[in-house]
Order: sequence, then structure tokens, then C-alpha cells
Amino acid sequence: MADNARRWNGWGLAGESVPVPTAACEWLTSRIGTGDPLSAVDESAVVVTPARTLTALPAASMSDAATRLRFACGQSFPDLLALRTGRIEAFPDAVCFPENADEVVRLLRAATDHGLAVIPRGGGTSVVGGVTVAPDAKPIVVLSLERLHGLETLDAASRLAIFRAGTLGPEVEASLAPHGLRLGHEPQSFEFSTVGGWVASRSAGQRSTGIGKIEDLVAGVEVATPSGLWRLPPQPASAAGPELRRLVAGSEGRLGVITAATLRVRELPEVEDGQVVLLPSWSAGSEVCRALLQSGNRVEVLRLSDPTETSFATTLVPLSRMQAIVSQMLFGFPRYRHGCLLLLGWAGAAQDVVLARHAAARVWREHEGLSLGESGWRRWRADRFRHPYLRDALLTRGWGVDTLETAAQWSRLGGVWNAVPTAMRAAAEAMGFRTAVMCHLSHAYPDGASLYFTFLWPLRAGSEFSQWNTLKRAATTALLAAGGTLSHHHGVGTMHAPYLESEVGEQGTAVLSAIVRALDPGATLNPRVLLDRGTINRSEPSGDGGDR
Amino acid sequence: MADNARRWNGWGLAGESVPVPTAACEWLTSRIGTGDPLSAVDESAVVVTPARTLTALPAASMSDAATRLRFACGQSFPDLLALRTGRIEAFPDAVCFPENADEVVRLLRAATDHGLAVIPRGGGTSVVGGVTVAPDAKPIVVLSLERLHGLETLDAASRLAIFRAGTLGPEVEASLAPHGLRLGHEPQSFEFSTVGGWVASRSAGQRSTGIGKIEDLVAGVEVATPSGLWRLPPQPASAAGPELRRLVAGSEGRLGVITAATLRVRELPEVEDGQVVLLPSWSAGSEVCRALLQSGNRVEVLRLSDPTETSFATTLVPLSRMQAIVSQMLFGFPRYRHGCLLLLGWAGAAQDVVLARHAAARVWREHEGLSLGESGWRRWRADRFRHPYLRDALLTRGWGVDTLETAAQWSRLGGVWNAVPTAMRAAAEAMGFRTAVMCHLSHAYPDGASLYFTFLWPLRAGSEFSQWNTLKRAATTALLAAGGTLSHHHGVGTMHAPYLESEVGEQGTAVLSAIVRALDPGATLNPRVLLDRGTINRSEPSGDGGDR
Repeated sequence: MADNARRWNGWGLAGESVPVPTAACEWLTSRIGTGDPLSAVDESAVVVTPARTLTALPAASMSDAATRLRFACGQSFPDLLALRTGRIEAFPDAVCFPENADEVVRLLRAATDHGLAVIPRGGGTSVVGGVTVAPDAKPIVVLSLERLHGLETLDAASRLAIFRAGTLGPEVEASLAPHGLRLGHEPQSFEFSTVGGWVASRSAGQRSTGIGKIEDLVAGVEVATPSGLWRLPPQPASAAGPELRRLVAGSEGRLGVITAATLRVRELPEVEDGQVVLLPSWSAGSEVCRALLQSGNRVEVLRLSDPTETSFATTLVPLSRMQAIVSQMLFGFPRYRHGCLLLLGWAGAAQDVVLARHAAARVWREHEGLSLGESGWRRWRADRFRHPYLRDALLTRGWGVDTLETAAQWSRLGGVWNAVPTAMRAAAEAMGFRTAVMCHLSHAYPDGASLYFTFLWPLRAGSEFSQWNTLKRAATTALLAAGGTLSHHHGVGTMHAPYLESEVGEQGTAVLSAIVRALDPGATLNPRVLLDRGTINRSEPSGDGGDR
Repeated sequence: MADNARRWNGWGLAGESVPVPTAACEWLTSRIGTGDPLSAVDESAVVVTPARTLTALPAASMSDAATRLRFACGQSFPDLLALRTGRIEAFPDAVCFPENADEVVRLLRAATDHGLAVIPRGGGTSVVGGVTVAPDAKPIVVLSLERLHGLETLDAASRLAIFRAGTLGPEVEASLAPHGLRLGHEPQSFEFSTVGGWVASRSAGQRSTGIGKIEDLVAGVEVATPSGLWRLPPQPASAAGPELRRLVAGSEGRLGVITAATLRVRELPEVEDGQVVLLPSWSAGSEVCRALLQSGNRVEVLRLSDPTETSFATTLVPLSRMQAIVSQMLFGFPRYRHGCLLLLGWAGAAQDVVLARHAAARVWREHEGLSLGESGWRRWRADRFRHPYLRDALLTRGWGVDTLETAAQWSRLGGVWNAVPTAMRAAAEAMGFRTAVMCHLSHAYPDGASLYFTFLWPLRAGSEFSQWNTLKRAATTALLAAGGTLSHHHGVGTMHAPYLESEVGEQGTAVLSAIVRALDPGATLNPRVLLDRGTINRSEPSGDGGDR
């Protein structure tokens, strides 16, 4: 049942890989030096501890070592480290594959009755520990949604499509396209992540500036809970109390297992068009983004790389001789020494796209932008799902790499952009190594935008985790202090859980804990994500608070 | 402290009124006959029962009879009936006027300690019983937010404005306009309703098709709870767990008292333009609306009246002789016998408005629309806040009138539009009277729209409440059965509370109850709204559910 096409210990398909270009190695070596290669052990070298015996589960299940290994981890840096070294903390005792929503409910009831923990899993691409199995006194069942997939119903007049939770990105679009429709939700993990996972983690796609985050696209949802199926029917809008669909979005498998979602879809665009523009600085670039969003420009894809990412990006793409000359000339030009690449994309009716592109040009010209044409846009479209493969190649070459992301209002965005790399470099220096931190602004809104940081460092054998942990902690603390949100689209998982209260307040965690207890009184569901063990057992805010 | 400019027993300002035009009386008489005038008693004739003695409250408070009367009711039909007849069920024991958020927290703590019930009140315009005082063993304090008003901070770069909860609509716009900004949230109650009330009830303004509902405009919120101030800072978007700001929106004073909200504002438009179009039928009109929304037309105001509302509307507006001839000609024309008026409005950059209006014209021409020009649009803009005054005038003339609203996806909208008046007419007939039910489609979305019903009937002395109750119950049951939401923007209040579970499921009410208990363990806050007394005490969904 385990999908053997997937690489068991890294990103994507087993047969695919992306090598690190020589220019990128040179760039990294000159900036942060070289590190200790982290080779990957053979699958046969992994010791899969024996499964605890479970009572029969009311759905197909497997508990062979290979399956248990494939469902033990997600795609976070600590997950990768565990998989490559073979030192995996814990394995599920069984993996089950329900065929329909009623089977999911029966599984949750059985798990509650028998004191099991259940980790719901879509595509397994969480980078924040959302699906990672941890040692637990309770036996652990991973509940794979892979057999609940496909388009269930299409209401073309209302542009609403009900998808089963386990539907992967490509199947979503393939089932809509014959009807002239698309969802347009294309996260980096598109090929391997699922509808249910997107909703559970409040995912955002690369087109989210135009299309919205997944929670904006969810009109209705069906959730399996130990007390039965919870159906929130699709409504275009409502005032029937607080919006509970928005509670399910971001619930990360703690409130129930999302079994289906009614998603807002749209017409396939008549045309798609895009371009790359060079701006002289980060501040000029972010002013362009702000102006585009606040003027209502219908830009669908927007991505502004900061000077470091812009510089690193040129080492990743094989440039034609002519492009290389142009690029050298531009970046050599003093005004563009700290140049930032801005990728813009539009989709829709031909006339609308032309108008939006012209309106955008008026904005970036005001900020001394230079058009680099359409080839960069085409290359981005062709390559965009291949970047995660680089992680595995970089580890093999001795460089650690991870990403993290946040969002903030425009007035705070520059502060966040500055604070995060500063804090990370200081933390690395204190531990005696260097880090390269690069950033892009994407997923923009009239009131702010998300920032996506990629950081690299030379691996030190045996200290890989503590190096990563030092950087991650410095970044998270810095972004929260500067007014950023804990995550814009990766979610909380286990990794960010200790920080959640600092963002949502003690009333916020009290509310979430109360909801968890109401829907999952047996604490069966994904018990380590979202809320710390510490907060989940507290029943109400501490009260008095006279000193606040 | 009571605002004496407001009419104590009806809508709006004491000095303002709108008479029922003779043509409207004729229209009503011919369709539903005449009824028993409901005259209004003098304020001096109202017996205000003595207040129970309360321990000193930590904020300015009043408990004179006039103030207690003015804070006893909202603006629902049963409220109006109580006020006009002087038979008011209950009065608050005190009305308090905190000056800042900390005082609100202290009040909630004192109320919890002393076993009081607290009804938070913004402008007091709820039409669903959201602020109505009911008999209670607990002493009742109405907490007026009127002293917490005004713009607190403006972040012009991020287009974010923090308003105190008690800020009325006109003050919101007046404080933004000097900065070249607007909120654009203009519910029918705009002049008398507040920021906090909008958020608490998930209000929608007349421009919501372009601007969004209030919950879309809330970037951050501050809520006073018995355990302290709960601050959810503004973020453009997040994946830090479920969106708790969306739990506060629609919480109707049950989870806490909203003391401030950070709202997304926008530039004042360069131009504003609109027109009225006549469509040959309801189905043609709703197809035009659907096409406009699904093609991404930037229409800001959209309102399609059904044939009954279109017909009644012509009795309300004094037509020029020329207009009268044109109107007669058009409606006399067989094709437009069931004609529907569609009001369209745009605001923004001049070029965008022209383009959007032209794009819309291509759509309505395809559906045999005829432009009636701009004068209808200008009249609507001038008169739109005056309609609620008609309610009082109609009661005096012997006709009951109320409104209700819902929303549904496009594929179900025709069914809801048909089911509601059918059920109401049958219910009236069974009770031996007639009702006129008219509707408009407004607040449209790519996946559906809201329907707003106005119903009138001849009052029968002594049976006014049961007539109303019969109609309301028939309508609510019918709209839920046809797939409509319980409310699109009026909220739940006490009036819709018994129906909430049928929409959100038993898991939904269990979740809401758990949240209420977590934030308000003393059950101090607005204890009759949103959740039935029955559901609030139930701790989790009934579980077993083997027969589901």
C-alpha cells in the first residue's frame, strides 16, 4: 500500500533528482564555507522496532516494516535527518487505509475505545512535524486518506466541487479541466499533497495572491469525529454564528479527520502571461508589491526575491550566453547592485490580462524597474515543483537547508525581513558557523504579505540537529518579536506548538483546548500537534490576571 | 446618558419619519387588505418595574427608569410590538458605560463574581433579539459601548485602522475621509450601528459585493473576557492554527465583549457610478448577477428586486411625469410584465469603473436587459437609510412588516426564492390572513448570493405576535429545508438560536458551547443568544450515534 514511487527518505519521486549546480556550490562555499556531507543509509539498515499488537481495526490496515517506515515521518528537516541517518524515533504500530468517511468514523471510535492515538495523513508533506510519529505510551495508528480520493460532485453553476480529502493536486486539476474549470491552488508540494492536508494546515498556493489561501476556497467541509460525521454544508457566506468552517481549516487533524471539502473553483483562464522585472532594491520591490495589491491589480502570481535570493537564483538556472551577459551587465550596474527580481503572473480573460500587465508596468516603472522579459516567467513555471529535490542533493554535498515563513502587515514587513536573518546569523556565529539566509515576498494582500526564508549552512557531523535547532529558534523568536505570524502557510505542527500561545493568547489556547476536548474527549487525534501537552489539559484561562 | 435624539420606541431619530405613500397603501390594500392600526402608547404610560439593587459596578452606571427603558429592547418586530404597546417583558437592572477596555474587563469580573448577566450593546439595532432583555433570575446589566468610540490608530501604509467598538458608521467614515480612505461598510443600520456590533453579528453592508462582509475586513480584534483582555493582533493571513478572529466574528457577545477591531480600509474612490437595469424575469436577473460575479466584474453594489418588490418599489418613489410614462410603458410591455429591477454600482479608478460598467452591459444585454439610466441609482443612494422609518408608519396604518434574509449557492437560490413566500402564504392562509412577500438578491459571490425578504400583512389586534411568529417560523423552516443559511447578516440572536444546530450540527453546537464555557465559565455574557439554554450545558456530542 505504501507508494513505492515516492522516495522513502527524501523529497518526491524515487527516480527524480536535481543536482546542485557548480555555480551554486561556489556561491555557498564563498559565503558560508563547506561542511560534512550527510550521506543516507540504506533502507535495509534501518531498524524498525516491532509493532505493538492492536485489536482488529475496522478498515484495511498494514503493519509490515516497510509500510511502517514509510508512514513514520513527514518532510521537516528533523524528519529528513532521521530518515537519512536511520535513527527514527518511533514508528506507527499500524497504518490503515479507510475507503470511505464512515470507515474513518468507525476507526476513530475503535481507536477511542481502545486507547490508541491516530495520526491522520494526506500526502505526508508536512514540514512542521504535522504527521511525524513520536514515542507514545499509546499505540499509534497512522490513518492514510489515500483511498479517499477523487471528485465527488461538481455544481458547475455555483462553481463548487466536492473533493474527497485524499485527492492529490494533479488529480484535482485533471478532474476539473474537462469542465473548463480549475482550482488554481498550487503549493510547492502540489504533486504530493492533498485537499485534506491543504485544509488542515491552511495551505497557500503559488497563485494565492490572485486566488486566495485554501481557507478562502473552502465553502463546506465534512469531518469525521469520534461522535460521527460533522457536515458543514457549503454556503457562500453566513451570519449563523461564528464561521466553524474556519475552525476546521488549520485544525491539523486534532479536531477530526477531514474526509471531504467543497471547494470554490473558477473558469480556466483564456490566457496566462507573466514577466520578470528587476527592481533596484528590496524597498523599491516591496513598494511595487504593496502598490499593486492596494490598487486592486489582478496579479495572480507575485514573488519578489531579496538581493541574496536574487544572487543565489542566478547560480541555479543555466543562463544562455546572451542572458548571462545581460544579467552581468545589470547586476554590475551600481544602481542594481542590490537588485531584486520580481516575478509577476496574470491569468484570465485576454483583455483583463493585458490591462493588468500595463497597469503593473506603470507601477514598477515608477520605482525604476527594468523588464527582463517573459523567459524567466516561463522557466519558473516549468521548474517550480523541482526545487525541493535540491534539499537532498545539498545534504549530500554537506549543506543543511530549510525554509520557514511568516506574514505581517506592510508597515512591519521591512522589520521582519531584517530581523530574521540578523538573528539567525548571530545565532550561527555564536555556535561557530555561518549561515546564508535569503527571502522572497509572496502571497501578498492589501494589508501585508508573507515572507518566505530559505537558510543554508555547512553541516557539522553529529551536530546537524542542534545547528538547525539553533537557527530555527532564533528565526522564530525574531519573527514573532517583529510582529510576524508564527506561520503563513506551513502550519503549527509539533514544531511551532510551543510558540502558539504567544500569538493567540492564553484565551486562544484555552479556546482551542476546549474545542479539542469537546470533539475528541479521548485525546485520540494527532495528540502532539497544535497545542502543547501543557495547554491541552488546562480548562480555562488562568483568570485573575491582576498583574496584567 | 440615553441618547434622546433616538426614537425610544421605533427606528432612528425621534424627529424623523417617512410617511407611507398613498400609492403604497393602495398597493397593499389591493393585495392583502387592511388591518388594525397599532398605535403607540406614550412613554409615560410604560410601567418600568423597579430595578433590583446591585453592588457597586466598577464603571459609570445608571438605573433611572428612562434609561432602563431605552436599553431594554432592540429593533426586532417583537421588540417594536413591546415598545408600541408598552408591554415590555423585562428591563435591565442597570446600564453601565465603561470608558475603556480595562473597565470592561473589570465589569465582567465583577459581574461574574456577583452572579449578574451582562448584555453588551453597541447601537442596539439587532433585529433578531441580540440585545433584548429577557426575564432572568440573575440581575441584568446592559453594557453600553457608546463611550468607547473613535479611531484609535491608523496604519495608512498597511491600510489598517483600529476603531473602538462603539464607533458608529458615520464616525468611521468621517475619521477616515481626511486621510483619503474609507471602510465602505454600509449596512442599512449604518447611522446607528457600531463597529463592535458589526463584528459580533457578522454584518454585511450594501456594498459588500465589492467590499466583503465585516468578517473579511477584520484583520485583528481585542475582546474583553472575564479572564482579561484577549488580543488577536492584525495579520494579513496566517496558518497559526484555526482563525480565531473568525470565531470572534459572529460571537454575538457570548464569548466576550469586543472592545476594538483593526479593520481593512481602502482608498476613497476616484469616481462612483451606477445605474438601474430592467430585466424581463427573476431568472434572467439572477443569471446576470451570477455571470457578473463569476466573470470577476468589479461591481460594488448589486441588488436585484424580484417582480413583487419591483412592483411595490414603484409605489414608494415619487416618479416624474416622464418617468411614470416610461415605467408604465415598460411594465405594460408583455415581455417585462414580470420585470425585475437590477441596481448596479461601481466605485474606484475612473478607467476601471468605465470598463466594469461596459463589461456588465454586455452581460445584461445578453439577457434582454434595458437600461433605466442613472436617476434610480442616485435616488437609491440618497434614500437608502430612510426605508426603516417606513416600518413605524406602516404599523400605524395597520400593516405589519418585517424582513429576513438568507444565502445559498446559485444552484439552490431559485429554490429558496420560491419556497419561502410559498410557505409564508400558506401559513398566513391557514391563519386566515394574507401576506405580501417580496425579495431582493444582494451581497453576491461567485458561488451564490443572499436573498433578502420583506413581508407585510394586515395586523389583527391582539394577534400581532402570533401572526408574525407564524410567518417567521414558516419562512425559517422553508429556507433551511431549501438549503439556505439561517442568516446571511442579521445573525442568530435569540430568535434563530433554536435553529442553529440544524445548520451547524450537534458537533457545531458542542464546539460553541465548549468555547463559551472556556471563556465565560460564569455564564455571565449575553446568556440567551446564539445557543439555546439546552445546548449550552451539554458537554460533548451525544457520541454513540449508531443509528446515524
